[in-house]
Amino acid sequence: MTGYPSLSVPPEGDFFRSRWVSPPAGIEFNEDPVLPDGFRAGGVACGLKGGGVTDLGAVVCDSGEVSSAILLTANAAAAAPIRVCRESLWQGEVRAAIVNSGNANAATGEQGILDALSMRNSLATELGLAPQTVGVAETGVIGVPMDMEAVISGIGGLAESLSAEGAVSFSEAIMTTDKWPKRVSLSVDGITLSAQAKGAGMIEPGFATMLCFVQTDAVVPEPEAALRQAVSGSFERITVDGQMSTNDTVLLQASGSSGRELPAGLLDAVLLQLALEIVSDGEGASRVGRVEVTGAADQAEAELVARKIANSPLVKTALLGRDPNWGRIAQAAGQALAGHDIGELGPEVIEAGDIAGGGREVELALRLDRGDGTAHVFTSDLTHEYIVINAEYTT
Amino acid sequence: MTGYPSLSVPPEGDFFRSRWVSPPAGIEFNEDPVLPDGFRAGGVACGLKGGGVTDLGAVVCDSGEVSSAILLTANAAAAAPIRVCRESLWQGEVRAAIVNSGNANAATGEQGILDALSMRNSLATELGLAPQTVGVAETGVIGVPMDMEAVISGIGGLAESLSAEGAVSFSEAIMTTDKWPKRVSLSVDGITLSAQAKGAGMIEPGFATMLCFVQTDAVVPEPEAALRQAVSGSFERITVDGQMSTNDTVLLQASGSSGRELPAGLLDAVLLQLALEIVSDGEGASRVGRVEVTGAADQAEAELVARKIANSPLVKTALLGRDPNWGRIAQAAGQALAGHDIGELGPEVIEAGDIAGGGREVELALRLDRGDGTAHVFTSDLTHEYIVINAEYTT
Repeated sequence: MTGYPSLSVPPEGDFFRSRWVSPPAGIEFNEDPVLPDGFRAGGVACGLKGGGVTDLGAVVCDSGEVSSAILLTANAAAAAPIRVCRESLWQGEVRAAIVNSGNANAATGEQGILDALSMRNSLATELGLAPQTVGVAETGVIGVPMDMEAVISGIGGLAESLSAEGAVSFSEAIMTTDKWPKRVSLSVDGITLSAQAKGAGMIEPGFATMLCFVQTDAVVPEPEAALRQAVSGSFERITVDGQMSTNDTVLLQASGSSGRELPAGLLDAVLLQLALEIVSDGEGASRVGRVEVTGAADQAEAELVARKIANSPLVKTALLGRDPNWGRIAQAAGQALAGHDIGELGPEVIEAGDIAGGGREVELALRLDRGDGTAHVFTSDLTHEYIVINAEYTT
Repeated sequence: MTGYPSLSVPPEGDFFRSRWVSPPAGIEFNEDPVLPDGFRAGGVACGLKGGGVTDLGAVVCDSGEVSSAILLTANAAAAAPIRVCRESLWQGEVRAAIVNSGNANAATGEQGILDALSMRNSLATELGLAPQTVGVAETGVIGVPMDMEAVISGIGGLAESLSAEGAVSFSEAIMTTDKWPKRVSLSVDGITLSAQAKGAGMIEPGFATMLCFVQTDAVVPEPEAALRQAVSGSFERITVDGQMSTNDTVLLQASGSSGRELPAGLLDAVLLQLALEIVSDGEGASRVGRVEVTGAADQAEAELVARKIANSPLVKTALLGRDPNWGRIAQAAGQALAGHDIGELGPEVIEAGDIAGGGREVELALRLDRGDGTAHVFTSDLTHEYIVINAEYTT
């Protein structure tokens, strides 16, 4: 086994602890994560995970006005909650979301769809909302029927528990094997924004799912555009094992009650830091690498090359082993561009020296000479713990 | 650490030991690997690897007639020997090949090209051949200048050592960290065919390279077509870690001196078994999986899905862990087809039960319902030893 342990607690420091995140100035953090005006959240233990562990959560916006946007996994074998949100959610008017951990409700067939609808409708009834304004997200084991008795029995208590102080229990209710909850509450320029995410944990024979919920009292005139931009620079820039989940969901809700707009760059910074938390807390991860490719023929090519490098098990084990092995970067880039001739990439165009340092955040860079395309991807190292988690915790 | 060790000796039984290979009838194996009439081979220790280990080999066809074909890696950052073979080898008339292990001569710039040419020209001079009829292949560490003094000093003795019985030392000279040499010599229907391959071993900060050399006294009217067909069903169907090498080379030489054609299916069977040996001997591998996808929209889609499954670290760790986790197969397929909607793939269309058995050869299958496209890929499991090899043997 290696001498490089994975993290079991989050790195120290402020929420914006990564050197790769540039939040706007003037931010103040809210100590006991407070939800923005007009929002309530909470979490309860309904029994899906057992042992009294919190596993059912919800968030709701009571404000008269809400604008929202939701982004869902592109996986072709998407889970039941994704299908429900795709097909019958009023995506620009999402009042509430109900989330369970412990069962992903994926590969569960028609019954899975009925179960996801039932969860959603029960919360809608409790809160007096139209069902089409309630989102549903689930994460955990796949291919196992939902224990709907547990879920339905928990929804009454869940609805009662919702409060402005409920972000802590909500962020815990959505965890699977995350080592730490990922959340923030901050105020800046007269607005408040809070967010909760989970991801990269495994549970039983499942696979990683990332979920993220963002609430703000700011005015967000085009929530879908804002969310797409922030997600394209954050969750779409990370990889742990190159495996796209069946359940990924990101929801933004804005009440607008502050009457002020979101400061430029705030949503991007919050989502990027949460995305980096997910890589940091990736299965078995001990380090995070930022792979940057410049000089590609175009942006798509840069992205292809950066992802090939970031997902290479040879690069990921070099990251673990503190091995500034630029040859593995050259090989992966050459594979991504197979059929072209890019010459023999050498150390004059590859920066990998950062690997040898002890830092947790490592920068890798490749300069091609084919055009102006640039892209970057964040990745974790590949460790023994990844194999232990995925090979030895069997069904 | 897992309780499933990787193999350290080849599996027992005849050369055609895989259940997935169907050789033609009537084959007799030649005990002390004999080369076909008109061929000589050999290997010597020139000092690239040190410790007196064989590291420089050659094979030559002395027959008046030779037809040949060579296939080279598509990696865009191809090594110097690949460039030399692409640019100045008479690929249909390859008389000889010189091969070293210990240094891949990759990412070595202009000097690497000069060194590969120098190796080739020296052997051509020793054997009295036109340089354009001599191929060159190299495998081992990358980004390190060749020790040409060692190589050149070894070529005289190498040329003298070549003999009809030299296939054993040749097959040893091309090994890197292969655990066993991969070779065969057989006769059938009046022809003899021998082959030597290496692959999936690592050396220092290098990466896997597969090399294969095939000699026969059969008549092969269209060697390139025959070789392309055999390679498309063998080496192009395997993956160990999804990483395409900078140095892959397969060379077929046919002297035609038997006056008889190759039996149908023989070259395919030999190359498939050698490809399976490479997966078996893959870094840290303890099992081999065959992933079959049927019912895809077309062949390209089937191949895309099969490769996504075969390269998924979640599927590869399930293979190690004897975990018949069909959900991971559904997830990988859904990722490969992201953007489409293929419904929720369940156990009724996924066969993964073979994983739970103790067998070394495991069959996995996914039946889609989109068309007639089928494809299969062979893969190894992902083990702790893979990480030890790639993270802990650092520069």
